[in-house]
Amino acid sequence: MPPAKRRRVTIQDVAELAGVSKGAVSRSFNGAERLPASTVQRIHDAAEQLGWRPNAAARAIKGAPAHTIGFVLQRDPDLLGIDPFFPLFLAGVERVLSDNAYSITIRFVADEAQEARCYRDWVAEGRVDAFIVSDLRDDDPRFALLDDLGGTAVVIGEPPADVHRPAVFHTSDDCIDEVVEGWVARGHTRIGHVMGDPALQHGRRRRDVWARALERHGLPTDALAVGGFTEAGAVEATRALLTAAEPPTAIFYANDVMAAAGMRVMSELQLAAGTDVAVAGFDGIPLGTYLSPQLATIDCDYVELGALAGQILLAELAGRPTDPERCELPARFLARASYGTDVAAVR
Amino acid sequence: MPPAKRRRVTIQDVAELAGVSKGAVSRSFNGAERLPASTVQRIHDAAEQLGWRPNAAARAIKGAPAHTIGFVLQRDPDLLGIDPFFPLFLAGVERVLSDNAYSITIRFVADEAQEARCYRDWVAEGRVDAFIVSDLRDDDPRFALLDDLGGTAVVIGEPPADVHRPAVFHTSDDCIDEVVEGWVARGHTRIGHVMGDPALQHGRRRRDVWARALERHGLPTDALAVGGFTEAGAVEATRALLTAAEPPTAIFYANDVMAAAGMRVMSELQLAAGTDVAVAGFDGIPLGTYLSPQLATIDCDYVELGALAGQILLAELAGRPTDPERCELPARFLARASYGTDVAAVR
Repeated sequence: MPPAKRRRVTIQDVAELAGVSKGAVSRSFNGAERLPASTVQRIHDAAEQLGWRPNAAARAIKGAPAHTIGFVLQRDPDLLGIDPFFPLFLAGVERVLSDNAYSITIRFVADEAQEARCYRDWVAEGRVDAFIVSDLRDDDPRFALLDDLGGTAVVIGEPPADVHRPAVFHTSDDCIDEVVEGWVARGHTRIGHVMGDPALQHGRRRRDVWARALERHGLPTDALAVGGFTEAGAVEATRALLTAAEPPTAIFYANDVMAAAGMRVMSELQLAAGTDVAVAGFDGIPLGTYLSPQLATIDCDYVELGALAGQILLAELAGRPTDPERCELPARFLARASYGTDVAAVR
Repeated sequence: MPPAKRRRVTIQDVAELAGVSKGAVSRSFNGAERLPASTVQRIHDAAEQLGWRPNAAARAIKGAPAHTIGFVLQRDPDLLGIDPFFPLFLAGVERVLSDNAYSITIRFVADEAQEARCYRDWVAEGRVDAFIVSDLRDDDPRFALLDDLGGTAVVIGEPPADVHRPAVFHTSDDCIDEVVEGWVARGHTRIGHVMGDPALQHGRRRRDVWARALERHGLPTDALAVGGFTEAGAVEATRALLTAAEPPTAIFYANDVMAAAGMRVMSELQLAAGTDVAVAGFDGIPLGTYLSPQLATIDCDYVELGALAGQILLAELAGRPTDPERCELPARFLARASYGTDVAAVR
């Protein structure tokens, strides 16, 4: 048997002795949120008794808020230049933050280990007051991590039911239903989907809603190809769908960039978008109205989403929790020319 | 006469006593750049003699690099969601920074006073190791500010000749000449310009190069309207130019977003872009190839620009100054369908 190691005192030990959460211990030292004076005293007594203290350099700067929001992204930085969500969302966040003299610190990480280290370092060094958590994953480890760090955060997307963090997201299921139902009403029986990244919740969700809508009508769901949210992926996926034995007469794309790329493939295949193949996208990018035909799309106001996220963070930091905890923004379907008319007219 | 106030000791006093620059004093305390040990000793002696010391909390954290690059922007945050430069440039910067575990902190400021305060605070609090300086203005106060703070920076754009800072920028004058010369060779005699924001150097430069090219041929430069780099501005500007007594037969837009908006105005006026009115833009946005006709454009690789800026910053921080100091990236003109053919064929 190896000799017993002396265990390092952790924030958990202090929390247990003081009878509070780890978050409360953290907050009692960083001064970012108000706790009753008696609680702070009890926590600091417990910390002293156990010989625990937060990192000194960190505490020196943490006395004052950092006036900075942290945004850690586990995705390819190149997506920044492609995904319309990011700049519009950031514009909304910044519109609110800059009015309040807050900055945003962005870090791209390669994996979960780097991600966790970044969260821990930023909190330990007092570099940020709160986090924006986006691109939700299954069994997302960031919620436990935030609880552990006692960090403030806003979630972009719909978190699991047992996560009690303020969250903002668009509800678009109704719009996807509207797209499919409209095509079914116009006589389409083979309705395809070019899906996003299957590793991301919103990529899978859009596919699932599309598939359920078809199943309600007993229509096949096999005209499905993965585009991964990228132009190159959409070109491949569209070619695969349209050169198959039974090509779809309508395609719902999980984002507008893929829809635009898909419409170019159609023109290369001598097919007219909106006439030979009905097309709808997702996002509502401004340039959709400059395409020929104009791109039908499920429009989400990402600037509004970002602004709301910024307001929630500032309120949380000021000790005013969000009510309701989950804030849903409605998307809306814009049936522009690419959505097409009746199949009878089309074929 | 008011009583003489005792003047506070400043970094300038320490620099003068030690016979070094303010930047050297700053660097001797933050440890971010190596100085000869004897110089550091001389500076610290001078500081002690005068009773000067850098902010304690700042120094505590400044002992270690912040591994963060600062990006202060004096522009409307909403432009983030419109201007293709920003997300692509940021993607390039992040591609390099994330590989080196660096973050980027972004702050939008309303005016020069806020801007200067942000630079000073970030340096004093050790929040950033270096700055990205973009959107150059006339008599830009940021160069003196950086000298004062002893800060490391990379300039995006062409700084005045007396500024010795590493700089990266695209050279596009030749491309603008190529656009205008090509139209003149095709028989156009009224060539218009929808310019960007006259307050920004690159907005004025594109107009000036366009005007000089016309003047070389003795052609008029009055078909000029300000679009301000925005869609709404371009719609107004295009309408004004095309409904004038002598409308231009070709229009060079200072960016692609304005060109796309302009082409939609043309279609509303029953004019065919590329046939009735030749069109060229600037930026090389990916969606340009999805427009009908495809948008001719002066293509700049902003991802490459950002990556280069990131590399320069990391090299500077590692004590390896950039050589050459100014790094020019060539833009290239892509003469796609909207550029049109001969005027004879057009009219």
